[in-house]
Amino acid sequence: MKKQRNGETWKFEIEMPVQRDSSPEVVLGIDGGTTSTVCICMSLPISDQTLDSLPVLARSVAGCSNHNSVGETVARETLEQVMAEALMKSGAKRSAVCVVCLALSGVNHPTDQERILNWLRDIFPSHTKLFVQNDAVAALASGTMGKLHGCVLIAGTGTICYGFTEDGREARAAGAGPVLGDWGSGYGIAAQALTAVVKAHDGRGPQTMLTSDILLTLGLSSPDELIGWTYADPSWARIAALVPVVVSCAEAGDEVSNKILLDSVQELAASVKAVVQRLGLCGEDRKSSFPFVMVGGVIENNKKWDIGKEVINCITEEYPGACPIRPKVEPAVGAALLAWNYLMKESEGNLRR
Amino acid sequence: MKKQRNGETWKFEIEMPVQRDSSPEVVLGIDGGTTSTVCICMSLPISDQTLDSLPVLARSVAGCSNHNSVGETVARETLEQVMAEALMKSGAKRSAVCVVCLALSGVNHPTDQERILNWLRDIFPSHTKLFVQNDAVAALASGTMGKLHGCVLIAGTGTICYGFTEDGREARAAGAGPVLGDWGSGYGIAAQALTAVVKAHDGRGPQTMLTSDILLTLGLSSPDELIGWTYADPSWARIAALVPVVVSCAEAGDEVSNKILLDSVQELAASVKAVVQRLGLCGEDRKSSFPFVMVGGVIENNKKWDIGKEVINCITEEYPGACPIRPKVEPAVGAALLAWNYLMKESEGNLRR
Repeated sequence: MKKQRNGETWKFEIEMPVQRDSSPEVVLGIDGGTTSTVCICMSLPISDQTLDSLPVLARSVAGCSNHNSVGETVARETLEQVMAEALMKSGAKRSAVCVVCLALSGVNHPTDQERILNWLRDIFPSHTKLFVQNDAVAALASGTMGKLHGCVLIAGTGTICYGFTEDGREARAAGAGPVLGDWGSGYGIAAQALTAVVKAHDGRGPQTMLTSDILLTLGLSSPDELIGWTYADPSWARIAALVPVVVSCAEAGDEVSNKILLDSVQELAASVKAVVQRLGLCGEDRKSSFPFVMVGGVIENNKKWDIGKEVINCITEEYPGACPIRPKVEPAVGAALLAWNYLMKESEGNLRR
Repeated sequence: MKKQRNGETWKFEIEMPVQRDSSPEVVLGIDGGTTSTVCICMSLPISDQTLDSLPVLARSVAGCSNHNSVGETVARETLEQVMAEALMKSGAKRSAVCVVCLALSGVNHPTDQERILNWLRDIFPSHTKLFVQNDAVAALASGTMGKLHGCVLIAGTGTICYGFTEDGREARAAGAGPVLGDWGSGYGIAAQALTAVVKAHDGRGPQTMLTSDILLTLGLSSPDELIGWTYADPSWARIAALVPVVVSCAEAGDEVSNKILLDSVQELAASVKAVVQRLGLCGEDRKSSFPFVMVGGVIENNKKWDIGKEVINCITEEYPGACPIRPKVEPAVGAALLAWNYLMKESEGNLRR
């Protein structure tokens, strides 16, 4: 161990029985989001296992670890805490950790990665392999058993699309937030629904069922009150929470709601197409097979009007080789599987030398 | 005087020479915006005057008086201060004020008006007539010599459209802010330009001259840096300041920029049409004459690509009776003229009784 940065956090290690050489080696996978952070500890080796029998030793949960939201210090403490808790529950010390993969929202640049790697190196022994990625990568890996190949579309409050080729190239689309045009996101759908209510009220747009249903949901008596409601709290998630109202109005036949959802399908599909095109994931004949992973509330939680299914239709129509996957495990499991795959690749590389 | 609410503010009155019965009566017109507040003091009577020879005695300027932005107390102090300064410069006491018209941004509801009237009544003597309006009303009056008839379109950082019939009905469209679909505004135009740059960069949209010109203007080296720039400061005005870049790209033939400006023209025209329709300003034959006043940076400050002119073309095509007006005096003058018109109407009413 290079340094003991935080005595309290790692105190459990001192109280643990001395590990024998035969104690299992472990991997840590972390999915660090704006809402919560999840850490999964798995024992090694992970091979030819089905999703049902993954060797998960422990799972721990903490709050936000996006450094843009809570700052570097808090983000770091949260991550250290969540990793320590997973190890403690697993009965493993840091010296047993072969590889760590942190998949964090807010990591968009090599400088972000380097900064986080720097302090991770202070926590773990020198033999521990460390990887830092954007959280979209963990979402992809959760659908591909840890293989970094294909395209992942995330659509919750925000939306982003990421893609990776087998030879290591990557591309991304959207993910720039509502001001910069993420109209397929939950926020985008809800903001357009609110706009439709205002436009129907002042005569710029057609009448819509959204008026009564949104006002009822928010406990307001007139569309005029939407201005105060909207600007009282700038949280994107609060606005995105109206998506189920839009879906239920669309299911009931409301044309305005249907158009909003169809537009969001087009926006989401456009992100996927941009990434697939740039990376050539579909091959030159546009028919090559590639995994197409989809996660997030907008794509999952719908009923009759299934936004995710519509996006899949758009994509498979253009790229018949796209294999749609809705992951059955959480992104933190994807991060752990990814960590394991990184380790395998490295040892393959070493064997070849 | 009911109460002496603020000794310091009105101290100048004690030091003034005793007014004779012949001292001129005055009106106050206030345009209270989010950026600044302007007060105009005019002597009475105002009749058959041209705009060049209006009896302006004084003009005073203060900061923001939007109660939503700075709170009730500060807004009130700012307004009291700016009125006191205009009166002091005019050499007039409050007892000389026949009528006050406050046109304030953020006043959207009868309860807002009532609250402001309540404390205004404490400042002025009982014979002073008091009127509180939305600031759009002053903009209209600045183009109609104080007559409350017609339609006014304001398009600066935000946009709003207001209309009044001669028999006192009123209607409004847009003005609900960017989340709620004010896409014709300066903020809307600039946000769409930023979105176009991001989409061109990640492969979702066509290449555009906006990329190089916006990055150069902001001193950034890659579209990826726009995310940080955009969310570093949530001020709408900061984003709206990019409108001239969009206009110059459109003038240079950039198709994406042209489409953004054409869309903004359609959005602005839609607000005007909604108000004209609802009030029937165009009459049953759709040809009746009505004033159509236009103010704000988006409509004024353009060169070859003239957004205001395009909006006028849209409107006069549909309503040949619309009389486009770009006011030559500021909204505070409009508020003063409006105050005078209110007074005239009241005395006409009294004569008829």
